[in-house]
Amino acid sequence: MSRYVKKTSHKKGLPPGSLVFVGNEKQEKIRIRIFNYDEENLKEIEVNRIEEVFPFKEQKTTTWINVDGLHRTEVIESIGKHYDIHPLILEDILNTNQRPKMEETDNNLFIVLKMLDYDAEKNEINSEQVSFILVENCVISFQEREGDVFDHLRERLRQNVGKVRKMQADYLTYLFLDAVIDNYFVILEKLGDKIEDLEEKLIANPSKEMMEQIHNLKREIIFLRKSIWPLRDVINGLERSESPLIKKSTEIYLRDLYDHTIQVIDTVETFRDIVTGMMDLYLTSVSNRMNEVMKVLTIFAAIFIPLTFLAGVYGMNFKYMPELNWKFAYPIWWGISIIAGLLMLAFFKKKKWL
Amino acid sequence: MSRYVKKTSHKKGLPPGSLVFVGNEKQEKIRIRIFNYDEENLKEIEVNRIEEVFPFKEQKTTTWINVDGLHRTEVIESIGKHYDIHPLILEDILNTNQRPKMEETDNNLFIVLKMLDYDAEKNEINSEQVSFILVENCVISFQEREGDVFDHLRERLRQNVGKVRKMQADYLTYLFLDAVIDNYFVILEKLGDKIEDLEEKLIANPSKEMMEQIHNLKREIIFLRKSIWPLRDVINGLERSESPLIKKSTEIYLRDLYDHTIQVIDTVETFRDIVTGMMDLYLTSVSNRMNEVMKVLTIFAAIFIPLTFLAGVYGMNFKYMPELNWKFAYPIWWGISIIAGLLMLAFFKKKKWL
Amino acid sequence: MSRYVKKTSHKKGLPPGSLVFVGNEKQEKIRIRIFNYDEENLKEIEVNRIEEVFPFKEQKTTTWINVDGLHRTEVIESIGKHYDIHPLILEDILNTNQRPKMEETDNNLFIVLKMLDYDAEKNEINSEQVSFILVENCVISFQEREGDVFDHLRERLRQNVGKVRKMQADYLTYLFLDAVIDNYFVILEKLGDKIEDLEEKLIANPSKEMMEQIHNLKREIIFLRKSIWPLRDVINGLERSESPLIKKSTEIYLRDLYDHTIQVIDTVETFRDIVTGMMDLYLTSVSNRMNEVMKVLTIFAAIFIPLTFLAGVYGMNFKYMPELNWKFAYPIWWGISIIAGLLMLAFFKKKKWL
Amino acid sequence: MSRYVKKTSHKKGLPPGSLVFVGNEKQEKIRIRIFNYDEENLKEIEVNRIEEVFPFKEQKTTTWINVDGLHRTEVIESIGKHYDIHPLILEDILNTNQRPKMEETDNNLFIVLKMLDYDAEKNEINSEQVSFILVENCVISFQEREGDVFDHLRERLRQNVGKVRKMQADYLTYLFLDAVIDNYFVILEKLGDKIEDLEEKLIANPSKEMMEQIHNLKREIIFLRKSIWPLRDVINGLERSESPLIKKSTEIYLRDLYDHTIQVIDTVETFRDIVTGMMDLYLTSVSNRMNEVMKVLTIFAAIFIPLTFLAGVYGMNFKYMPELNWKFAYPIWWGISIIAGLLMLAFFKKKKWL
Amino acid sequence: MSRYVKKTSHKKGLPPGSLVFVGNEKQEKIRIRIFNYDEENLKEIEVNRIEEVFPFKEQKTTTWINVDGLHRTEVIESIGKHYDIHPLILEDILNTNQRPKMEETDNNLFIVLKMLDYDAEKNEINSEQVSFILVENCVISFQEREGDVFDHLRERLRQNVGKVRKMQADYLTYLFLDAVIDNYFVILEKLGDKIEDLEEKLIANPSKEMMEQIHNLKREIIFLRKSIWPLRDVINGLERSESPLIKKSTEIYLRDLYDHTIQVIDTVETFRDIVTGMMDLYLTSVSNRMNEVMKVLTIFAAIFIPLTFLAGVYGMNFKYMPELNWKFAYPIWWGISIIAGLLMLAFFKKKKWL
Repeated sequence: MSRYVKKTSHKKGLPPGSLVFVGNEKQEKIRIRIFNYDEENLKEIEVNRIEEVFPFKEQKTTTWINVDGLHRTEVIESIGKHYDIHPLILEDILNTNQRPKMEETDNNLFIVLKMLDYDAEKNEINSEQVSFILVENCVISFQEREGDVFDHLRERLRQNVGKVRKMQADYLTYLFLDAVIDNYFVILEKLGDKIEDLEEKLIANPSKEMMEQIHNLKREIIFLRKSIWPLRDVINGLERSESPLIKKSTEIYLRDLYDHTIQVIDTVETFRDIVTGMMDLYLTSVSNRMNEVMKVLTIFAAIFIPLTFLAGVYGMNFKYMPELNWKFAYPIWWGISIIAGLLMLAFFKKKKWL
Repeated sequence: MSRYVKKTSHKKGLPPGSLVFVGNEKQEKIRIRIFNYDEENLKEIEVNRIEEVFPFKEQKTTTWINVDGLHRTEVIESIGKHYDIHPLILEDILNTNQRPKMEETDNNLFIVLKMLDYDAEKNEINSEQVSFILVENCVISFQEREGDVFDHLRERLRQNVGKVRKMQADYLTYLFLDAVIDNYFVILEKLGDKIEDLEEKLIANPSKEMMEQIHNLKREIIFLRKSIWPLRDVINGLERSESPLIKKSTEIYLRDLYDHTIQVIDTVETFRDIVTGMMDLYLTSVSNRMNEVMKVLTIFAAIFIPLTFLAGVYGMNFKYMPELNWKFAYPIWWGISIIAGLLMLAFFKKKKWL
Repeated sequence: MSRYVKKTSHKKGLPPGSLVFVGNEKQEKIRIRIFNYDEENLKEIEVNRIEEVFPFKEQKTTTWINVDGLHRTEVIESIGKHYDIHPLILEDILNTNQRPKMEETDNNLFIVLKMLDYDAEKNEINSEQVSFILVENCVISFQEREGDVFDHLRERLRQNVGKVRKMQADYLTYLFLDAVIDNYFVILEKLGDKIEDLEEKLIANPSKEMMEQIHNLKREIIFLRKSIWPLRDVINGLERSESPLIKKSTEIYLRDLYDHTIQVIDTVETFRDIVTGMMDLYLTSVSNRMNEVMKVLTIFAAIFIPLTFLAGVYGMNFKYMPELNWKFAYPIWWGISIIAGLLMLAFFKKKKWL
Repeated sequence: MSRYVKKTSHKKGLPPGSLVFVGNEKQEKIRIRIFNYDEENLKEIEVNRIEEVFPFKEQKTTTWINVDGLHRTEVIESIGKHYDIHPLILEDILNTNQRPKMEETDNNLFIVLKMLDYDAEKNEINSEQVSFILVENCVISFQEREGDVFDHLRERLRQNVGKVRKMQADYLTYLFLDAVIDNYFVILEKLGDKIEDLEEKLIANPSKEMMEQIHNLKREIIFLRKSIWPLRDVINGLERSESPLIKKSTEIYLRDLYDHTIQVIDTVETFRDIVTGMMDLYLTSVSNRMNEVMKVLTIFAAIFIPLTFLAGVYGMNFKYMPELNWKFAYPIWWGISIIAGLLMLAFFKKKKWL
Repeated sequence: MSRYVKKTSHKKGLPPGSLVFVGNEKQEKIRIRIFNYDEENLKEIEVNRIEEVFPFKEQKTTTWINVDGLHRTEVIESIGKHYDIHPLILEDILNTNQRPKMEETDNNLFIVLKMLDYDAEKNEINSEQVSFILVENCVISFQEREGDVFDHLRERLRQNVGKVRKMQADYLTYLFLDAVIDNYFVILEKLGDKIEDLEEKLIANPSKEMMEQIHNLKREIIFLRKSIWPLRDVINGLERSESPLIKKSTEIYLRDLYDHTIQVIDTVETFRDIVTGMMDLYLTSVSNRMNEVMKVLTIFAAIFIPLTFLAGVYGMNFKYMPELNWKFAYPIWWGISIIAGLLMLAFFKKKKWL
C-alpha cells in the first residue's frame, strides 16, 4: 500500500457521513474497555457489546471508553447515536487518512491525532490514528489497534496517583494528548540519535549507501512534519475554545501542552535543516573523491606517458641513429628518465596533489 | 496548444462582460439535463432549448440544471438573463482559463472549480472547468464536456439515498463540491503510486530517462497546485459567507469540506518535497556513476601504463644494454611486471576502489 | 542604459516635488488627444496647447485627456495646477522608474502602472509607464510615447459599443486598467510558448546555448514579477477605496479585475517554478553528457592500453625469449588479444556502458 | 575589524544607558554646525562648545543642529540633558552598530538610519550611521564623520529654494530622510551597472575570478538588505505616528518616502535574484568547460591509442610474422591507420563533439 | 549525549507537574545566594537551606535569590510551595530542554532563556538554561551551574552604580535579560570572526577540511537560531504584558531590549546567508580544481600520445620501410615531433588552458 496516501477510492461516490473504514485492518476483534471513576471509586471493566457502556452516561462519575479496532463500523455507529455525534465526525474517526484536527460542536469536542511508534526492526516510524470525543463526564477514545501510550495513565488511574481522579473528563483528555505528545519526544530522540550517527559516519567515511539513508531520513521527517504541524492549530484551538466542556483550571495545562507542541515542531524543523546540510556534505564528499581519483590518474599518466615516449624513441629502427651506438647511452637514458619522473613528482608536490 | 496558458488573445479589446468561449471545443452538441425534485417526487428530463427549463424557477422544488458544453454562448446568455446573473460571471463561466474562485452577489452564489481526471493512457492529469451558480431553489452547473464525477450523485438522487432529497439546493451544491474534491484524492492516490514506483526504480537502478520523468512529475505537481491552492479560499469563503442561500445546517458540511481541501493541499506539498528529494537522489547517483567510470579508467591506466613503459624500455635498440643478454632477463622482467601490477591492485584495494 | 535601474542621479538634491523627467525620451513631440462624451454625443479632438483642454472641466460630460510623451514638464505642471494635483504626484508621473501604485487624495485618484509590450524582433518584453489621474468627470492619462493598448477602447467609445458611454469616468478608468491587464495575458501567452519551445528542445537535445536562454527567460520573469506583483495591492486598494470618485456599480468590475491580477501573478509564479525546473534538467543533461564522454574514453583506454602492453612485451629485445621463435606465436598472440578485447567489451556491456 | 558585527564587548557589563562610543573614530575633532531659520531670516554658525547652542531652544524659529563625530560622549550627554532625551536613546546614537529604527517618546522622535556611500576605489559600499532627534522647533542630527548627502539641502536652505524655509522641523526631518533614501538609488544604480557588467562578461567568457566577484556582490547585497529592510518599518511608523511633532501636511511626503523605500527594497530583491541566477550560470559554464576538456582528451586518446597499438603489433619481434615481409605491408599499414583515424573523427563529428 | 534533543524518555508516563530534572548534572552541590537591597542598604548572604530565604518575602526591600544547580528537586519544590508557583512552571525550570518562553500567571511572571557561552578550546557554543521567576519584590533565578553573565551586575548592586538600587524587581529582571542578550553579541562577534577567517582562507586556498568546518558553522548557526528566535516573542510578550509586576517606567527598557533581540536575530540570519554563500564558493572551487586537474592530464596526453604513436611507427619491423634507411630520417623525425608538440602547446595556449 502506498505510504503517502491511503486508498480511499472505494469510498468514492458514497453520501457524506457514510461510515466506511479507510485503512488497514490491524487486528481481528474489537476490544472495548471502560474506566469509570471518581475520587473515591474506580471500576475497570471490559465489555463485549457497546450497549453495555451506555448506562454510565447517566452517572456523575467520569467514564473513559476505549475502543481498539475500527473495522466494525456498527459499533461506531451505535456510539454515535447514543452520544448524539454528527455522522461526519464518525466518518472522520473511521478514515485513518485523517489530518490532525479539532472539531467543536454544541455537545461535544472531537480531536483526532497521530500516535507515533518507532519500529526498531524496520528502522521506521509507524503512525496510528487515535481520536477522542469529549462529552459531558465522558471521554471516548478510538484506536486502530491495541497497544498505546496510555499504560502509564491507566496505572495512575488505578493507583490514584496525581490529580487525575480529582479532576474531570477534560483533564483526562488533556492527559491523553500529553501522553501522545510526550511520546513524540521519544521518537525525536531516536531520530536525533540516528541523524547524529549518520552525520559522524558521513564525516569519517562517506559511502555510496549513505545517500539512500539520508533520503530515507528526509522522507521520515517529511512524514513527521505532516503529522505534527497541524497539531499546533489543534492545541491552540482547544486552548482558546470557549466550550463549557473545558474547565478554566485545565487551561494552564493546555498552554503547557501548546509549548510542548511548538518544541516538537521546532525540533523537526531543526532536523530538516541538518539533514539538508548532510546532503550538501555528502555531495561535496563525492566531488572531492572524484577529484582524488582524477589526481591519481593524472599523476600516473603525466609521469609514464612522456617516459614511454622516450623509450619509444630509442625503439625506432632508423639506420642512422648515432645515440644507439654510444657506450653509455643506456645508463644516460635511464638517468634522464628518472630525473624527468622526479621533476614531475616535484611538480605535483608543488601543486599539493601529493 | 500551450499547456500553461490558454489563448485568450482573440478576446483582447472586447468590452468586459462580452461572452466569448475561451478554451477547446470538446464536444459538438450542447446537452442540457434537468433534475427537479423534492422529498417525494423526482423528474429527470433532457431538454433541447434552454427556455424549456425556465418554468421550474417558479416551483418550490429544487432544480439542478446541468449544461455540458460551453461553446454556444447564446445558451449561457439566455440563462444569465433569466436568472439575473451579472455578465462578468457569465464571462467567467466561458473562460476555461479561470482560477478557482467564489463570487457572492445579492441573489446568487457563483463557484468555479477544476475537475481533474487521470488519463491512464497518456499518463497525464487532465483538467476540466466546472462552474456552479446557486440561486434560490436551483443549482445550475456548467461543464466543458459530458462525463463528470457526479454519476454517483445522480444515482443517489434517483434512489433517494441519504439526505440529499430532504435538503435544499445549498446541500446539493455542497455535494457537487464534495464529489469534485473526493475525486482529487483518487488523483493523488494515482500520483502517489507513480511517485513511489519511480522512487523505487531510482534507488534500484537510476537511468537517464528518469530525470525526464521526475521533471514531468514536477510539472504535474505544479499544475495540480495551481488548481488546488485557491480552493482553500473558495471553501473558506463559502463557510464564512453570510448569504441567505446557505443554510446553517450546511455549515458543518462545508467545514468538513474545508478539512478535506487542506488535506489535499497538504498531500500535494508533501509530494513536492518528495519529488525534490528524488531529484537530489538522481543527481547524486549520476555523480556516483561518474566516479565509478573514472575509477575503472584510472585502475586500467595506472596498472598498464607503467608496465607498457617497462616493455618499451627493453624494446630500445641501444647497442650496449647488458640486461638484454642475461639468461633470465625475460622471466625476471615478467616477475617484476606482475609484482608491480599486483602492488597497484593492492593500492586500489586499500583505497576501496575495488 | 541599465535595464535594472533607471538613472535618477541627475535628480539628486532637488527639492521634493521638482518636476524632472526620468527616463528615455521616446518621441519628439508631445501629443494631446481628448475624448469628450456623454451617452448622446462624442467629441474627439487633438489640441496643441494644454490650456485648450481646461474648459472641459466645467462640463458635466466625461472627458478623457491623453498625453503621449512626458519630456515637456511644463505641460504636466500646467495640468497639475489646473486640476489641483499635488506636486509629488506630478513628480511620480515623470519618474518612469515608478513602481505600480495607487494614491488617493481628497479630490483625485492617482494610479501608475506598467504597460508591457512584446518586441518580437529582439525577443524581449518592453515596458512603458502609464499613469492615470481620475478627477470629477475626467480621466487624464500619461504615456511615455504614442502607441498603446487602448485602440479597441477608443473604437468602442466612437461606436458607442457596450456600456462605456453610459457610465462615468470611474468606469472608463476601470476599462483602461482592464485593457492593460488583459494585455498581460497576451504577453504571458507568448512567454508560455517560448518556455514550452525551450523545454521541448531541452529534452530532445540540450545544447550549450540553452543555459543562456534559460537565464534570459529567468531574467524576463524576474522583470515581469517586479512589474506585476504590486498590482495586487493597487487593484485591491481601488476596490476597497471609499473615495466618492468610485461609484458602487463599478466595484464588481474592480473585483473581477482583481481576480485577473491574481491569475496573472499565479501564472508568473508557475513560470518561475517551471524555469527553475528547466535549469535542473539542463544541469543534469550536462552531467549525463559528461558521463557519456567519460565512458567512451574509458572503453577505448581499457581495451587498447592492455593490448598495447601485450604488443610491447613482444617488441622487447631480450636475447632469450622462447615465445619469439615459436611457430604459431604470432597468431596465438592475435587470438589472445582479440579475446582480451572481447572480454573487455563484454564487461562494459554488463555494466551497461554500451 | 569584522565587517559583519562591530565589537561591542568593551561595553559588556555596563549599566543600560551608559554612554560609550561603539565604532571606529573616523575624525579627530567634533564639529557642530547650526542652521537657525524662519521664512525671512537664516543664521548659519559653527560653535565650539555645545552649550552655545542651547539658547536657540527658546526661539520660535526652526533650528538644525548637526554634530559630526561621536567619540566625545560628553557632548552627546550635554545635549541629552538639555533637550531631555532618554539615556537609552543617547546610547543608541553612540552605538554605530544600530539597526535602522524609529523611537517615539513624549517630547521627541528619534530616528536612526544608515547613510551609504560608494567607495569607487575599493569598489565597496561603505555605511555611516546617522541619527536624528526631532524636538519642538529643532532637529538634531548626529553623524560619524563630516561629509554627507545633505549639501544640496544646505544650499536650498541658504537660497530659500522650495518650501523648506516655509515649513517646520518635521518637514526638515523628512528632507533629511529623503536625501538619505534618494542616495540609495545612486548606490543601486552603481550596483546595477556592476551586476550588468559582470553578467555580460560571464556570458562572453566566464573566468575563475568571477566566482569571487559574484560572491562579493552577494555579500554586498546581503549587507545592503540588512541596512534597508528595517527602513520599511521606520518610515511606516513615522507615517502612522500620532505624535504632535509631525504635522498633517507632512504626511503625504512621508507616504511618498514610503513608496521610495519599497522601491529600494524591491530593487535589492531583484538584484538578489539576478545574482543567484548568475551563480547558476557560472556553475554551468564550469561544467560545460569541463565537458569540453574531457572531449579533447577523449578525442586524442580514442584516435591515437588504437593506432599506437597497431604500430606496437608490427614492432613485435616474432620470428614468424608473414606481414613483415610483404612488399606493400608498410603503405597498407598507413592506409589502415589513416582510415581508422578518419573513422574515429567521423564518429566524433556524429556525436557533435567536434 | 545527543546534541539535538535531550533525553526525556525517563520522564515518560509521569503525571504532569512531576518534578524531574532533565539534563546533565553539571555540579555536585546546589548553591543558593541572596541579595537583599533597597536604595540605602544591601545584604549579600549565602544560605544552606532554602527555608532561610523565606523570611525575606515579608520585607519591602527587593530580594534576588539565585539558585545554581537544578538536580535537587526538593529545593525547587520548596520554593514553589512557598511562593505559590504552579507545578507546571517548576517542571519547566527543571527541564533544561526548554524552549525560551514567557509565562504570566496571576501572581508571578516566569521567563526561561538560554545563556550562551563560547568554549574557546572546543571551538563550540555551549548553552545553559536560566529561568527567572518574578514575584512581588523578589526575583528568583535558576541556573544549571555556577558561573554566569551576571557578575558585572552583582558588582553594580554592591557599589550602588546606576539606577539598579533605586528601582524594583522588574528592573532587576530586565537587567538579567539585558545581560544575557548583551552576551549574545559577544558570541556573535566571535562567530563573525570565525566566519570571516574561514571566508578568507576559502578564497585564498580552499582545502578539503573546509567543507566540514562550513558544515559545523552551519550547525552552530542552526543551534543559535533555535535558542534565539523564540526570544522575540518572549521580550515582545513582556513589553505588552499588563501584569502589575511590570512597572510603566521599565517599558522603555524592554522596548530597547526588543530592538537588541531583533538585531541579534538579524545578525544570525545574515550569518546564515553568508555561510550558504560560502558553501557555494567551496563547491565551485572544487569544480574549478577538478577542471585544472583535467587540463593537466589532457595537455600531457594530447602532446605525448601522438608522439608515442610516431615513435611506434618507426619501431615497426616491416622489411620494406624506405624511411628507415634515409640518412636524415632520424633528425627529421625529431623535427616533426618537436613541431607537433609545439603546435599542441600553441593550441592549448589559445584555449587559455596554459
